[in-house]
Amino acid sequence: MESVLYRCKQFVWEQVQRIAYKVGNGNNTFYRVDRQNIVDKRDDISFDVRYFECGPEGYTTLEKHQHTHVVIVLRGCGSVLVDRKWHDVKPFDCIVIPGFTPHQLKNRDAEEPFGFVCIVDQKRDSFQLLSREELTDLLKDTPDLMIPHGYLTENN
Amino acid sequence: MESVLYRCKQFVWEQVQRIAYKVGNGNNTFYRVDRQNIVDKRDDISFDVRYFECGPEGYTTLEKHQHTHVVIVLRGCGSVLVDRKWHDVKPFDCIVIPGFTPHQLKNRDAEEPFGFVCIVDQKRDSFQLLSREELTDLLKDTPDLMIPHGYLTENN
Repeated sequence: MESVLYRCKQFVWEQVQRIAYKVGNGNNTFYRVDRQNIVDKRDDISFDVRYFECGPEGYTTLEKHQHTHVVIVLRGCGSVLVDRKWHDVKPFDCIVIPGFTPHQLKNRDAEEPFGFVCIVDQKRDSFQLLSREELTDLLKDTPDLMIPHGYLTENN
Repeated sequence: MESVLYRCKQFVWEQVQRIAYKVGNGNNTFYRVDRQNIVDKRDDISFDVRYFECGPEGYTTLEKHQHTHVVIVLRGCGSVLVDRKWHDVKPFDCIVIPGFTPHQLKNRDAEEPFGFVCIVDQKRDSFQLLSREELTDLLKDTPDLMIPHGYLTENN
């Protein structure tokens, strides 16, 4: 097998497509998020490496799933919601988000993008949105959840 | 399971030890390399995430093994030997080094460290040094291999 060098220019990797953050369901649950699957579905390793970028005021979907995320921040400043708290993060902080933990990442800057790699097992389950009851419970401890208008509609 | 946030200050991650790059054999095969196993042997994922840093003029061991490396440069400027060529790299270039490909990473700067994360499957084989014959062959196409005095001794 040949080696591959994905050169990076301004957080765009050569030979890697910029794709939609979510395909299929969940389209009304986030704001301004781009995605590049840098290392994807190789059969000689058991993991994938993806880069996500939240534009100004952008945020990912508030979600949970069985699989664990390993996140390393590469660019900008953001916040991560895990364990019912928001944690401010900057390059090159590393966050491990274990299975079934509700989580969300958001940009804290109005101009600079917030970008991070997220490493996951290739074999993994899909994301789940939080139910109305879970949201209500989470909101007791955690204000500033980013819940766009379409979120509960998507989850019904 | 709790989430973990490993905060990074100047390329040192909180709660993560700086350890020797190689333990056991291979100690005379590299120069000025530090290592931090940021995410190591978790049982909820199948991969490990390690950070390596080559100091000024530092270089890793010229080696091969069955397992594949995914490398993302975080800091400084270096070169990667793969496929019998040196490739200059900078932050956030990503290199996939497939199984049994002889490879080496070195710092190109006399002052600034060269640092990168390397992601690997947890289940993996140990490194192998190159034999005298492999070295002689590789040197036909690839000058500037970094082979310290102890290298062939370690391999005998």
